[in-house]
Amino acid sequence: MRKVTILGTGMTKFGKDLDSSLKTLSHEAITKCLSDANISKDKIEAAYVGNSVAGLITGQETIRGQVMLRESGIGGIPIFNTENACASSSTAFHLAWLGIASGMYECVLVTGVEKMTHEDRTKTFLAYESGLDVETITSSSKQSTHSIFMEVYAEKAKVYMEKYGVTKEHLARIAAKNHTNGSLNPYAQKNIPMTYEDVLNDKIIVNPFTKAMCSPISDGGAAIILCSENFARKHTTNLVYVSGSIVNSTSINQDSNVIEITSKKAYSQAGISPEELDVIEVHDATASAELIAYEQIGLCGIGEGKLLVEEGVTNIEGVKPVNPSGGLESKGHPIGATGLGQIIEITWQLQGRAGKHQINGKPRIGLAQNAGGHLGSENAACTITILER
Amino acid sequence: MRKVTILGTGMTKFGKDLDSSLKTLSHEAITKCLSDANISKDKIEAAYVGNSVAGLITGQETIRGQVMLRESGIGGIPIFNTENACASSSTAFHLAWLGIASGMYECVLVTGVEKMTHEDRTKTFLAYESGLDVETITSSSKQSTHSIFMEVYAEKAKVYMEKYGVTKEHLARIAAKNHTNGSLNPYAQKNIPMTYEDVLNDKIIVNPFTKAMCSPISDGGAAIILCSENFARKHTTNLVYVSGSIVNSTSINQDSNVIEITSKKAYSQAGISPEELDVIEVHDATASAELIAYEQIGLCGIGEGKLLVEEGVTNIEGVKPVNPSGGLESKGHPIGATGLGQIIEITWQLQGRAGKHQINGKPRIGLAQNAGGHLGSENAACTITILER
Repeated sequence: MRKVTILGTGMTKFGKDLDSSLKTLSHEAITKCLSDANISKDKIEAAYVGNSVAGLITGQETIRGQVMLRESGIGGIPIFNTENACASSSTAFHLAWLGIASGMYECVLVTGVEKMTHEDRTKTFLAYESGLDVETITSSSKQSTHSIFMEVYAEKAKVYMEKYGVTKEHLARIAAKNHTNGSLNPYAQKNIPMTYEDVLNDKIIVNPFTKAMCSPISDGGAAIILCSENFARKHTTNLVYVSGSIVNSTSINQDSNVIEITSKKAYSQAGISPEELDVIEVHDATASAELIAYEQIGLCGIGEGKLLVEEGVTNIEGVKPVNPSGGLESKGHPIGATGLGQIIEITWQLQGRAGKHQINGKPRIGLAQNAGGHLGSENAACTITILER
Repeated sequence: MRKVTILGTGMTKFGKDLDSSLKTLSHEAITKCLSDANISKDKIEAAYVGNSVAGLITGQETIRGQVMLRESGIGGIPIFNTENACASSSTAFHLAWLGIASGMYECVLVTGVEKMTHEDRTKTFLAYESGLDVETITSSSKQSTHSIFMEVYAEKAKVYMEKYGVTKEHLARIAAKNHTNGSLNPYAQKNIPMTYEDVLNDKIIVNPFTKAMCSPISDGGAAIILCSENFARKHTTNLVYVSGSIVNSTSINQDSNVIEITSKKAYSQAGISPEELDVIEVHDATASAELIAYEQIGLCGIGEGKLLVEEGVTNIEGVKPVNPSGGLESKGHPIGATGLGQIIEITWQLQGRAGKHQINGKPRIGLAQNAGGHLGSENAACTITILER
C-alpha cells in the first residue's frame, strides 16, 4: 500500500436550516474543497459519498451521490454511496483511502452530507431509530421530544457513572469545554461558550443529560480530496498523511468493546501509541460518550477518564486536547457528515490553520474516532482515522 | 493488483414473498454461500452489503448490513453498506474485489439483498421512484399499478424502435427466450416457458410493453465469497477469476452512453474483446433494455440488435447466449440482489454447474451488465463484471 494524503477540505457551517437540501449542502462543501485543493473537478477519478438517512428524510433513498454530485457538475466516474449510520462518511473516507493506497486512483473525492431537519420532527426521530435493529424496537420515539439514542446513551452512562464514581459535574465539565471550544469555531452550530454551571442548569433531556450535554439535530456537508503523495506534491507542501484508517463493527458476542479494538488496530497500522497523539476528535453524541471514549482509545486506563476531566488534560490548552472543534455537542452532528467533519478538524489542526480554536504547539499526529448505530449494548459501527504531518 | 477469485456462491429463489425479510433472505443466501465455499464464517475478514430501498420498505434505513449479518453470526469485521440503485450489489462486489486485489484481505463476503414486496404496494412504487432525482419528479406513481421506471423505459424504447425499425415482435422474442430459459432455472421467480405469441398476448403494462416484457417485483438474496488465488487453491480446483470489474455513473452532458463506456473499460481491464464472450447476463429490466444492451456492450453494431434476435444468436443454444438464467424478466429483479445474481449465474455457467439452463460447450469467458437508477436520459449507475475460467 502506498501513502495517501489529504489535498483539500471543505465544509459547510453545521446547523439547523430547513431551507438547505442535500444538493445545496454537498455543493457548498465540494466547491470549497476543490478551491482549497486548487484542482479542477476533472481531476477527480472516483467519488465516495457518505449519507445515512436521506431516504427517510428527503425520499432520495437511492443514487444519492449521483444526484448530489450532478449539482456540482461531477459525473462519468465511479460513485460509491456508502452508509454506516453516524460513521457513514468516515467509512466512505476509508474506502477512498484504499482507492488511493491500492494504486487504483490518483485523486478521489469523499463527501459526507446529511439533511436532518424536517418540518415534521417525527420524521427526524424515526430516522434516528433506524440506527437500531428496527425489528427489535419496542418503544417508538414517535411521541418523543428527543432521539431514541439519547435513551440508549443514558442507560450506558448511568451504569458507567455508578461503577466509576463519575458525577454529572464531570459530564458538565466536558460539555462546557466543548461549547467553549465551539464558540471559537465559525463552522460550529452552537457558538455560545458555557461554564459547567450553565450546562448543569440547562434543560433536562434524559437523566443524566441536560440539553448542552447532547449533540443537536443538524444539517451539514463536508468534503475531502484524497490523493497519492506524488499527486499532492505538485499542488502543496503542507502535506497531511493518512497513517491509519480502520472500519469495524461490533462483535457478535460483545465480549470486547468495538472502539477499543478498532483503535488498537489503527495504532498498529499507523505504528504509533496513544501517548503520541497531539490532538483528538471523539464521537461525543453525548458528554458521557466522550468520557468513555478517553478510555477506549487508550488515553488513560479504565475508570480513569474522570481524572483527565478533573486535571483539564483534554481542554484545548491541555496536553491531550479532545474536540477542539466543539465536538458533536457544540459543532453539531449532521450524521452522514460528522465523520468527515472530524477528519477535517484534525487536518486543519495539523496544518496550523484551525484559527481561533487552533491548539498550542505544532501538533504532528491526530486521531478521529467516529461511531454509528447500536446493536445489543455496543456501537454497530466504528471507525478510527489517524493523520500525521 | 493481484488476481481475485470466486470461492463460493449462494442465492435464494427470487420471488414475491410477503413473509420473507431482509434477515431471512440474507441468512439463506449466506448460509448456502459458506457451504458452497466450504469455509467457516470466521475466515471472512470483511463484508460488503448491497441493498437499495430497505429504508423505505422496512424502515431499516441504516446499519442494514450489521443487522443482517448478525442474523448469520457475522460481526466484528469491517462491514460496508453500499447503495447504487439496481446496481447496488455489483457495486459492493467491485469494492470487495478491490479489497482482495489490493492485498488488503484474503477472503471477503459480498451479499446483496432486497425486500420489495409490501402489503401497501404504494410503498414499493415510491421506492422505485427514489431511483430518480426525487426533486424533479412531477407525476408520482402513488396512484399507479406499475413502477415509474416502466414509463422511463417505454419512452426510450419508442424512440429506439422508431429509429431502427424494431417491432413489438422483436421485444416479444427476447422476453419469450428469457421466460423459456427461466423455466429451466429453479432460482427463477417465473417458471413458465412462453412463446412470443404468449408474450404479445399478455396484459399491457405501458405501450410497447406487455407484462411478460417487464421485470416483476421480487424479493431475494445472493451472496459470493471472493478471495485471493492462494486462498482459493486450498479449497477448490474449479477456479473462476474476476478479470474485469468496473463501476461507472452517467456523465454530466450525456454525450455518450454509460453502458458502452463502462463495457469498453471492462474489456480493456480484462484484455479481451466482446467477440471472446461465451455467456452474457444483461440488465433486462424490460425486453427493450436487453435489445439496446446488445449494442452497448458491443455484441453488434448500433441498430443491429434486432438481427441478433432474428437469427437466434442470443438464444441459450446460440453463439452468444444472453440471460440463460431467465434474466430480470423471468428470474426476477430484487434490485439490491440482482447484480450478484447475474454474477452467480455467470460463475455457474463457467463452472459447468448451471443445471438445466447450462449453455452448450465449455464457456471460458462471461460478462454481467448491471444498471441502476436514471438521471436525464441515462442510467445513473452501471457496472460491468467479466469473469474467466
